Amino acid sequence: MKITSVTTNDVRFPTSRDLAGSDAMHPDPDYSAAYVVLHTDGDVRGEGFTFTIGRGNDLCVAAIDALAHHVVGMDVRDLDRDLGPLSRALTGDTQLRWLGPEKGVIHLAAGALLNAAWDLRAKLAGKPMWKLLADEPPDALADLVDWRFMTDALTRDEALELLSRRAAGKEERERRLLANGVPAYTTSAGWLGYSDELVQDLCRQVVAAGFRQVKIKVGADRADDVRRLRLVREAIGPDVRLAVDANQRWEVAEAIDWIGELAPFDLAWVEEPTSPDDVLGHAAIARAIDPIPVATGEHCQNRVLFKQFLAAGGMAICQIDACRVAGVNENIAILLLAAARGVPVCPHAGGVGLCELVQHLAMFDYLAVGGEDDRRIVEFADHLHEHFVDPVDVSGGRYRALLAPGYSAAMWPESIEFFSYPNGPAWKEA
Amino acid sequence: MKITSVTTNDVRFPTSRDLAGSDAMHPDPDYSAAYVVLHTDGDVRGEGFTFTIGRGNDLCVAAIDALAHHVVGMDVRDLDRDLGPLSRALTGDTQLRWLGPEKGVIHLAAGALLNAAWDLRAKLAGKPMWKLLADEPPDALADLVDWRFMTDALTRDEALELLSRRAAGKEERERRLLANGVPAYTTSAGWLGYSDELVQDLCRQVVAAGFRQVKIKVGADRADDVRRLRLVREAIGPDVRLAVDANQRWEVAEAIDWIGELAPFDLAWVEEPTSPDDVLGHAAIARAIDPIPVATGEHCQNRVLFKQFLAAGGMAICQIDACRVAGVNENIAILLLAAARGVPVCPHAGGVGLCELVQHLAMFDYLAVGGEDDRRIVEFADHLHEHFVDPVDVSGGRYRALLAPGYSAAMWPESIEFFSYPNGPAWKEA
Repeated sequence: MKITSVTTNDVRFPTSRDLAGSDAMHPDPDYSAAYVVLHTDGDVRGEGFTFTIGRGNDLCVAAIDALAHHVVGMDVRDLDRDLGPLSRALTGDTQLRWLGPEKGVIHLAAGALLNAAWDLRAKLAGKPMWKLLADEPPDALADLVDWRFMTDALTRDEALELLSRRAAGKEERERRLLANGVPAYTTSAGWLGYSDELVQDLCRQVVAAGFRQVKIKVGADRADDVRRLRLVREAIGPDVRLAVDANQRWEVAEAIDWIGELAPFDLAWVEEPTSPDDVLGHAAIARAIDPIPVATGEHCQNRVLFKQFLAAGGMAICQIDACRVAGVNENIAILLLAAARGVPVCPHAGGVGLCELVQHLAMFDYLAVGGEDDRRIVEFADHLHEHFVDPVDVSGGRYRALLAPGYSAAMWPESIEFFSYPNGPAWKEA
Repeated sequence: MKITSVTTNDVRFPTSRDLAGSDAMHPDPDYSAAYVVLHTDGDVRGEGFTFTIGRGNDLCVAAIDALAHHVVGMDVRDLDRDLGPLSRALTGDTQLRWLGPEKGVIHLAAGALLNAAWDLRAKLAGKPMWKLLADEPPDALADLVDWRFMTDALTRDEALELLSRRAAGKEERERRLLANGVPAYTTSAGWLGYSDELVQDLCRQVVAAGFRQVKIKVGADRADDVRRLRLVREAIGPDVRLAVDANQRWEVAEAIDWIGELAPFDLAWVEEPTSPDDVLGHAAIARAIDPIPVATGEHCQNRVLFKQFLAAGGMAICQIDACRVAGVNENIAILLLAAARGVPVCPHAGGVGLCELVQHLAMFDYLAVGGEDDRRIVEFADHLHEHFVDPVDVSGGRYRALLAPGYSAAMWPESIEFFSYPNGPAWKEA
């Protein structure tokens, strides 16, 4: 059985119309997926995507098309062996790499294709992604990683040792995972465009639903932030954790000063205080606001940045994203880097479909890489799940382990058609 | 007079056919320009481009088209005032910035548009770009810079002070520039795909032509590098400077070890020893190979990375690129950051048209930012200049100051047509 063709769709949800997802740097996001399907000559297909916030989704689709020839013709029986080489082929294309290397549009596109290839492999194996990855032996996992530019932080041998050590207790953790899932926090209550009253109402609702952490957007106006955090702390009480997210809004000195004013509200972490490229800036902020942890990663372009953030102390909470880097493979590398440093991985999610994908990586991390860690908690936003064939199951403030084979990436054909840009009914009507 | 429309061309030169430009990571580059023209309702137009090495040039063209609406409708009489805001609009688009932010395809596209807008402004002023920039008062230059994420390294006030200090001696430097130009080094002799004999012949030719520095590609094979450097040193003699360029090929420890073997050939600098994203890796290499300077910058994605490279000591030679970052504006920011640290700027050039553009920035740096500095030297590769209306004038190993108005970006219409991809004769015939 071979991969015979690749089709793409530009799918955009007009979320900017109701300010869901609004933050200090992105006031009007239209959550979008550059969606890709790997067709085979059998009765199975691989589905994947990368995530954007509207304009430019077409550029990701075009980049996926430009890279698709690396996938077409692959024998699906060899996927067990070939996803490491595929990852390196996609990110190492001798001409396309000039557009990065390993960053921006071209890297998002590589991620979409790799995510789809993994979905296909998991379906063929009859396993959900978390289980497929957790069952891989250490040397097979190590073969999936591109070790270039990593070895000063972690060598293949050190990773093998870490993974072998983590094998102890894996079955017990899998039992716990199936019984209890992994903890989630919610961002749905705290968008910047929401009124005070709506935020307080939503906070009460999510605490009642079992969430033990909420996250609030900050960074646009200092007095507003203080007022909103007071209202939120009032609504959630002293025991629920409260994280804040500045979405890259501040200068280094400004961040330190501003966070100082928010510190009395007992912050679980401060997320993306400044440019996501600024390793040394994050490290300086982390030193100044200690013991409040600095969280970042959703815009972290590749493993080379994660390596440096972890080494410099600029990332006390590691927020992997399922779509920003080169898909599953590079996320395995990043999970290993974080585990080697003892830094907890608290994945970024939300948008459209990010929860569906990244839950699998968090569960794999729990079972096989990071292991037991009370600090692990996965972002959740209650938007757009209805468009997925296998939506997340979040209840009691926890992601429950799905058992359906694959990477949960498939959208309903009706959703793809309705929200296709620019010709779907959702956009034609507007 | 207004900018009425924007047109783009995907122009590719089939340079991979003769291995010109081959290096350890890019064995088969087809030097390409994502070329943009800003049309006006007057008799003047702005020309600019970004540079790629073949596949993916179409993605840059598409990204330029996606950003073009920021430029259409601008009143050209206001360009003196509006190029700062334009720069921030292009890099801050609330949805497109998700694809970076400020990196990869979307940033290359912003650079192309800004370069074209500057070409238009310089033509209207009747000045070559170097002169237009050098004549700007300090506060006008500061207004061109996006100060976000810079102020922990350099504030606007500190930049104003630096620029005001540099005003002393500017007229004298301009006289010297007009008489002597700025020094160049050549990369044309040392491509990895060239035979030993060809490299030696070319080295002798360029020294005879007046060049006082050559650069050789290394990093593919250690024994080959030692052999080639011995031959090159033999050919150029002990007094001509010899730089090497590894084009991102090494791990950190590998770089230190490998450079140790090349050190006896008296290296002027070692360029891009590892991932261009690895600030801390470059700094570790720099400490280990001291006093050999580490040079980098051509793949440095934006001012936030330059800021960190300079702060961490990972960039003893700052290699700006006219097209990688957001055009002229972000390069002004980078020149200021380097000058504030006392680090010499030795621009990256070559490819197609990079020499034509970056010479202006080097001359502006000499006149108004970095000032007198014996270490300043500009890369030159003797390829593809015949396609430009105002090609560089390099003689006696120096770039001579051009006097034609504009940014020297315009290509001949015949060249654009012949090398248009995929339908130009150069590609149809192949």
